[in-house]
Amino acid sequence: MTAPHAWPELRGIAYGGDYNPEQWSRETWREDVVLMREAGVNMVSVGIFSWALIEVAEGEFDFSWLDELLDLLHENGVAVDLGTPTASPPAWFFAKYPDARVIDRDGRVMGFGSRGMASHSSPAYREAIVRYADTLAARYAKHPAVVLWHVHNEYGVPVGEDHSAHSAAAFQLWLQEKYGTLDAFNSAWGTAFWGQHYTAWEHINTPAAAPSVVNPAQRLDFARFTDHQLRACYIAERDAIRVHADQPITTNFMANQSWTTDLWAWGREVDVVSDDHYLWAPDEDAHIGLAIAADLSRSVGGGKPWILMEHSTSAVNWQPRNIAKRAGEMARNSLAHLGRGADGILFFQWRAGRSGAEKFHSAMLPHAGVNSRVFREVTELGADLGRLAEVQGSTVKADVAILWDFESFWAQDLEWRPTDDLSHQERIRAFYERLWRDGITCDFALPGQDLSGYKLVIAPAQYLLTAPDADNLTRYVAGGGTLLVSYFSAVVDENDAVHPGGFLAPLRDVLGVDVEEHLPLREGQTAAVTTSAGESLKADHWQEALRLHGAAVVATYAEGPGDGEPAITRNSHGAGTGWYVSTRLDADGLNHIMHYVYADAGISPSGLPEDLEVITRHGDDATYLVAVNHGEENAVLLAAGHELLSGTAVQESFTIPAGGVAVIRSSKTRTA
Amino acid sequence: MTAPHAWPELRGIAYGGDYNPEQWSRETWREDVVLMREAGVNMVSVGIFSWALIEVAEGEFDFSWLDELLDLLHENGVAVDLGTPTASPPAWFFAKYPDARVIDRDGRVMGFGSRGMASHSSPAYREAIVRYADTLAARYAKHPAVVLWHVHNEYGVPVGEDHSAHSAAAFQLWLQEKYGTLDAFNSAWGTAFWGQHYTAWEHINTPAAAPSVVNPAQRLDFARFTDHQLRACYIAERDAIRVHADQPITTNFMANQSWTTDLWAWGREVDVVSDDHYLWAPDEDAHIGLAIAADLSRSVGGGKPWILMEHSTSAVNWQPRNIAKRAGEMARNSLAHLGRGADGILFFQWRAGRSGAEKFHSAMLPHAGVNSRVFREVTELGADLGRLAEVQGSTVKADVAILWDFESFWAQDLEWRPTDDLSHQERIRAFYERLWRDGITCDFALPGQDLSGYKLVIAPAQYLLTAPDADNLTRYVAGGGTLLVSYFSAVVDENDAVHPGGFLAPLRDVLGVDVEEHLPLREGQTAAVTTSAGESLKADHWQEALRLHGAAVVATYAEGPGDGEPAITRNSHGAGTGWYVSTRLDADGLNHIMHYVYADAGISPSGLPEDLEVITRHGDDATYLVAVNHGEENAVLLAAGHELLSGTAVQESFTIPAGGVAVIRSSKTRTA
Amino acid sequence: MTAPHAWPELRGIAYGGDYNPEQWSRETWREDVVLMREAGVNMVSVGIFSWALIEVAEGEFDFSWLDELLDLLHENGVAVDLGTPTASPPAWFFAKYPDARVIDRDGRVMGFGSRGMASHSSPAYREAIVRYADTLAARYAKHPAVVLWHVHNEYGVPVGEDHSAHSAAAFQLWLQEKYGTLDAFNSAWGTAFWGQHYTAWEHINTPAAAPSVVNPAQRLDFARFTDHQLRACYIAERDAIRVHADQPITTNFMANQSWTTDLWAWGREVDVVSDDHYLWAPDEDAHIGLAIAADLSRSVGGGKPWILMEHSTSAVNWQPRNIAKRAGEMARNSLAHLGRGADGILFFQWRAGRSGAEKFHSAMLPHAGVNSRVFREVTELGADLGRLAEVQGSTVKADVAILWDFESFWAQDLEWRPTDDLSHQERIRAFYERLWRDGITCDFALPGQDLSGYKLVIAPAQYLLTAPDADNLTRYVAGGGTLLVSYFSAVVDENDAVHPGGFLAPLRDVLGVDVEEHLPLREGQTAAVTTSAGESLKADHWQEALRLHGAAVVATYAEGPGDGEPAITRNSHGAGTGWYVSTRLDADGLNHIMHYVYADAGISPSGLPEDLEVITRHGDDATYLVAVNHGEENAVLLAAGHELLSGTAVQESFTIPAGGVAVIRSSKTRTA
Repeated sequence: MTAPHAWPELRGIAYGGDYNPEQWSRETWREDVVLMREAGVNMVSVGIFSWALIEVAEGEFDFSWLDELLDLLHENGVAVDLGTPTASPPAWFFAKYPDARVIDRDGRVMGFGSRGMASHSSPAYREAIVRYADTLAARYAKHPAVVLWHVHNEYGVPVGEDHSAHSAAAFQLWLQEKYGTLDAFNSAWGTAFWGQHYTAWEHINTPAAAPSVVNPAQRLDFARFTDHQLRACYIAERDAIRVHADQPITTNFMANQSWTTDLWAWGREVDVVSDDHYLWAPDEDAHIGLAIAADLSRSVGGGKPWILMEHSTSAVNWQPRNIAKRAGEMARNSLAHLGRGADGILFFQWRAGRSGAEKFHSAMLPHAGVNSRVFREVTELGADLGRLAEVQGSTVKADVAILWDFESFWAQDLEWRPTDDLSHQERIRAFYERLWRDGITCDFALPGQDLSGYKLVIAPAQYLLTAPDADNLTRYVAGGGTLLVSYFSAVVDENDAVHPGGFLAPLRDVLGVDVEEHLPLREGQTAAVTTSAGESLKADHWQEALRLHGAAVVATYAEGPGDGEPAITRNSHGAGTGWYVSTRLDADGLNHIMHYVYADAGISPSGLPEDLEVITRHGDDATYLVAVNHGEENAVLLAAGHELLSGTAVQESFTIPAGGVAVIRSSKTRTA
Repeated sequence: MTAPHAWPELRGIAYGGDYNPEQWSRETWREDVVLMREAGVNMVSVGIFSWALIEVAEGEFDFSWLDELLDLLHENGVAVDLGTPTASPPAWFFAKYPDARVIDRDGRVMGFGSRGMASHSSPAYREAIVRYADTLAARYAKHPAVVLWHVHNEYGVPVGEDHSAHSAAAFQLWLQEKYGTLDAFNSAWGTAFWGQHYTAWEHINTPAAAPSVVNPAQRLDFARFTDHQLRACYIAERDAIRVHADQPITTNFMANQSWTTDLWAWGREVDVVSDDHYLWAPDEDAHIGLAIAADLSRSVGGGKPWILMEHSTSAVNWQPRNIAKRAGEMARNSLAHLGRGADGILFFQWRAGRSGAEKFHSAMLPHAGVNSRVFREVTELGADLGRLAEVQGSTVKADVAILWDFESFWAQDLEWRPTDDLSHQERIRAFYERLWRDGITCDFALPGQDLSGYKLVIAPAQYLLTAPDADNLTRYVAGGGTLLVSYFSAVVDENDAVHPGGFLAPLRDVLGVDVEEHLPLREGQTAAVTTSAGESLKADHWQEALRLHGAAVVATYAEGPGDGEPAITRNSHGAGTGWYVSTRLDADGLNHIMHYVYADAGISPSGLPEDLEVITRHGDDATYLVAVNHGEENAVLLAAGHELLSGTAVQESFTIPAGGVAVIRSSKTRTA
Repeated sequence: MTAPHAWPELRGIAYGGDYNPEQWSRETWREDVVLMREAGVNMVSVGIFSWALIEVAEGEFDFSWLDELLDLLHENGVAVDLGTPTASPPAWFFAKYPDARVIDRDGRVMGFGSRGMASHSSPAYREAIVRYADTLAARYAKHPAVVLWHVHNEYGVPVGEDHSAHSAAAFQLWLQEKYGTLDAFNSAWGTAFWGQHYTAWEHINTPAAAPSVVNPAQRLDFARFTDHQLRACYIAERDAIRVHADQPITTNFMANQSWTTDLWAWGREVDVVSDDHYLWAPDEDAHIGLAIAADLSRSVGGGKPWILMEHSTSAVNWQPRNIAKRAGEMARNSLAHLGRGADGILFFQWRAGRSGAEKFHSAMLPHAGVNSRVFREVTELGADLGRLAEVQGSTVKADVAILWDFESFWAQDLEWRPTDDLSHQERIRAFYERLWRDGITCDFALPGQDLSGYKLVIAPAQYLLTAPDADNLTRYVAGGGTLLVSYFSAVVDENDAVHPGGFLAPLRDVLGVDVEEHLPLREGQTAAVTTSAGESLKADHWQEALRLHGAAVVATYAEGPGDGEPAITRNSHGAGTGWYVSTRLDADGLNHIMHYVYADAGISPSGLPEDLEVITRHGDDATYLVAVNHGEENAVLLAAGHELLSGTAVQESFTIPAGGVAVIRSSKTRTA
């Protein structure tokens, strides 16, 4: 089913936030809409936690306050993203259906009093969410305020896996459907190991706590099943809404901050991708994590504009130390999202809530009220976004793809890997950060998709790689592409079974090398590699014993267990080139290597200052340089056109002040 | 009901310890009473863990051994503090009433084999404790040995919260009684947040493990409920005893080492406060922690003499490293307690037990026997206390109060606060330690009590402050008092809801400032503040964005997110002064600031050496300077009178040797 | 019942590994046997995880594939160590008997999907294992391939304790049998403490999670019970096999890497000891840990040859960082085991498994295949072991014994000891390492056994010492032996009750000293001791206040709480000498002290380089010097005879290259 509308009926960039008026009096509602207008808000998300106040008893709905609210918003020119509150069923639901509660790996029954969905496999829950979505959509499908539907909230957070009896029964059915026969199932799970052979589907359980490590194939399939069940809940709600409504339907992802959902599959089910993103305070360069999330949101949506459904005006409340944003930071964050394809900039939440677990989360209207730095900046941002209406609908293009495969990450994160120092997130970030600092925009991609449009494909952490996907990468290189593969890749197949022929065997032809043995380093141990150009590069955590099958050695281990043996290789294959990096290089080492790789791929760094983030959005008639200056010095961008925020013409260059932002409608750029 | 007697019928200072003769033979009993006489013991606590050996089956009591024991003690001049053993029900009780077992947050059913009370909400438990207390009191109310009743042991330790079905049912009733209507209840708990609205009392559960953070109002009320249930158990036992007996009744607190009981409320229910205190070995100045516990014990008892019911002669057994006390340390600890109002100095326990979990806990009579440093010092201390009989009944007076509010601490300790670096205990200790080093005696107080008798009131950590209590503080200052408020205070009301108007709003008038935003620092980050006098003071962990409403700026942030903005303020209000300190100063910084504050309050430091602790007890006819020298050098105290321990006259001064103690009956003191 | 055969019918040293052909095709089987011959393999362990593929439904056995396999192995000259797979019951078993699942201390029911035995007290499990063992043995007792029976796998790992209802019921019976009367039981457990008196056996539970520390006597007895139940399972299987078969029967221990089994008791039940050993990667001298395991395996078997049933060719997979072995390391490990009495060198496992939790565990035939360093070294080792056939049956002799008492270790590891810094493993290792570096071979021994054959007995950590065992040590010294006792020894009796008279009281006569008080140091605190010879030795963690009863003071504390008091003492008792060391000396300090002790005992260090490990095996007609050079330099060993691996005659000396090994058939040795 395709959505009749692919984008909310809004003019320009969407701006607003979650709005939870059920916590406030009618007087406050009226104050809110006045202030929303003042702040330039044109859309708010409503109803995300309202189940208990709408369906007041099973099957008994009271929409009176919501009727009033939607009318009020509409009268004041604020459109509505209408939520289904199914992430937080009411107390009466759990009292009536205690078996719908989630059970964790340790057998703990998750209680009421917080939030988080019920068992995604509970029949009672499934019935209740469809009833709610159907009733809600029937009532408001034609309401003029409603421009978007917002199903549930952050699927998979705070709980994903469920070990209840409902989940176990559904898991058995899911496995039976996937594998057909017990023989195929036993083979895929490798149950001959440790005597785990099954003779009946009903003997299979969820991978709950066990005396030792649970079968990794079981855990991997349970991760797939969990993702499937969550998505089945979404689809059930979406389809119930679609019967009545033709506005686009979405659910808010958590891009690179949640790991229970395969966003590639989810991207196919939503009409428009929306994402929640929060800076991770211990990360001194948290804006690079932001860029990853934004690029991933764009990529799973196939490059189409997407909505930043939630971020924060200042501090959040759930990190060890919740650092407040400083002056200008919220605008920089917002514009960076916009530059990477977001056509909506929304916040959690409009008005800070006085009670509950998130009272210390910042908001557009903070506890301190309108006379505050935050509200002043919110109002300025609203005005700025109003000036960027023409950017809406333009897109981002990239020459480089980084492979991002949730199934591989799930598999790699299981227990008993060669060393605790392995981290797919760390390697993704390292290669991404290298590109970010070099001013090179990238997409994320799956190893099995058509990659021919990219000049360079990087696989920082492709632990699980199926044989067909390995063939796809091989064909990509044969066709002229440049492929860089980092260590601990192509280790296992789709069942977490080591590839016949050993580690890296499926990429042996394209890379001209395979891996005889893993050589993890001791805690704190570092080791240098020496390039054929004589450079000494620092590395740590990991080495591998490589066997050459035609590749040229670009760097050799100068220390550690691999001392004297090949460390980094380059292989010509067909019309392209395959690189293999078998150790963890630091930022400087990666810099050296990537410049050789860029040359093979025919791309080059932007030459801009490292702290000046510039992304280009391509419209039908113009391009837009979105520039964000994260540095403490002014930065000059060579460009010609029109700076939209200040409304000034740009002849040759534009100076972005320290901490400032700019959007230049332009047709050409050079570095300063 | 008022106790007919407010103090045990004993001559002079009570001295002794827990006595568990059920672990020993009759021969050992006879040896014990001889040694007790030798050591100057005049009271022992008996029967605290004897339930299974007295009520040998349900309703079947065998008092024969206890009869014999009490007679033996009485014949030897040792009075008895008679315990009810309800902290440790027998095996038969749990076998018959398995549902009386405590269940923790994670759903674990707490097993037998250790100690710790049964579910405080279990009807079977409630019935059993009243039956035991009634039977015990009926038998021994008139026994001449019994001078005090000791109900239970350390309520709330080792377990406080209980998540059993009995607890949940009692919690529902307690809430219904507190709130009356579901509307009032839903409003207080802020259940509109995260969709937690309740439509029936019986849907409410204890705040057990949930997928994410549980409603903080729910947790706060559950803490209040837990305290209430524990106290209800105490009251039930006390009232059962009172029917038969007119000796005073107590239960032993754990002052600042347990956080499940609101000792202000408990203080109103006991005839005499008694406290257990153990040095915390990692604290190099553990004697300051001791002083806090002692001052708190005195304060919750309204300033009346109290009993140190347990401390240790040397090492305890439950800390990571159980450091033995060195020569003289036990005497210093004992005299410090006495100086702060204790008229009884008792230990856990008389004779070291050979078996069980506490065999490595020191005792008055250690495993090494009478030929030991510990027993020799115990005997010396007994003699010394005998010389201090006249001190009994004298009291301690203070010009300064530090606010100590268990409800606020419970609320602040919940999850998702702005930073993990916030610690109410740390701030209380910092300000207390400043006063201790300056030789200024203080009480602890509640923010809602009459404070007019104090020259200075310090609120180091008053996160939760109700509007009426804020009014009380405001009136205190208006009436001429000096109030110092430290950061993260007056943030929420009694339901853990942020005050309307924002952080610090209820104290805006009296302090002339409020808080626009919290600015926690990153891990390890420090930042200086500069005073208007030009001093640079180090601080860390926390800054705030202040908005001035009339206060004068005393210091400004020189670094960090608040750079250039106000950090410390002073405000004249009515006849008094309100100070606000918005960052965490180190000891030196606090020293600078407090001397300005002392000046406002009209008080001054003692001028004594920092390691010489001197407290004054005021009797009807004399005052007693209790001096404890914690330093490694002799210290001279200018005083005139009579040193009671050595029995020497003091003309002008008295030298307290390094590590030594002295008690001078005196009428005037000056610093050396 | 004595085994008709005490050693498998094999020529020379056993060589091979676990073989799990159920994971592979018939083609692979045929490749395997060819490669086994190439590698010199003469025995493999089969069937250890095959339950589900043999007993395909309850009581229904399908031996067809196993028939085929045993015939194939026999035809190819590979003998079989035939396993019972009872460590891993099938899915159908748990589906039918859910009450046979293990429950942990926290009440978690251990799920299927991993491995680990069912409840060792479950009647259904007991019945099933006997049925399986009986059926298997009946079928294969006469099969010519079968030379050894391998019951179960690593008893007590990954789970030992079981808190299920079956376990609790069995525990009650076990206690009743042990103690006879409730009075005796209550007395032994010291239940007068904390009110734990029991009036019925059925009120006793397993020591599950409780509000505070559980009675240590209860925990100690539960450890004994757990060991007993595991062994009862072994005996039931062994006896079922013995009815049919006369080959030797074993089960594989985990020597010093598992703590749930009392290997002295197990050693009496097996026909031949077999052990699994894995290097602990964070230990830079992991080969010393290996030596401890090997010496312990030999000792619990009474000095007879034993089998190294599992070790690894390279990395394991379950440690935080799984470090690959480097060239030659596998051979060094193998020869060190052989030198210490192993007559079989086997691995986990023959061929690396593609699936499951152990796919990253190295194997004889790695994922990388035959063209690999590992397979080449495996083949070389097979050839080397073939050259050592004549060593089989020779034995190891020692002048020194280190006490190793599992019951004492169990007791010491319980909660609430004087300091977290106490570690029996650390002290055992420290004294063992001192001997290892001095080239002195040692046995392990129990404190109650005949020790008269040893010149020196060391008790590094004999926390629990019964009075009869103390008498045995006293008699040993009186008869001329030298005894060294380290701190925190002879503290408690068999019920974890402190000895009457205090710490060390049972050894007061023989050592001439006892302990008045423990003086643990603060975290990170160090303190020197000064010997009577004026040496200053560094120490940390622990001091004791000693009371002399005749001993001479050899060293005195120069710092810390014991400053100026005795630290190390020496006492003449009868014809021998008793040493007491009351603090934790570093390696250098131990070196100083041990050389005085060696002199008393009349033994002397080997004088060889520290990294050259040389152990002597004594045959009927020859001795064999097994030399392993762990160093980075060649080492010269003065010897005459014949080096067996190279087949060269040795006139006066033989040079073992850096990292190399040698075995010299010889009649005399001198140091270089």
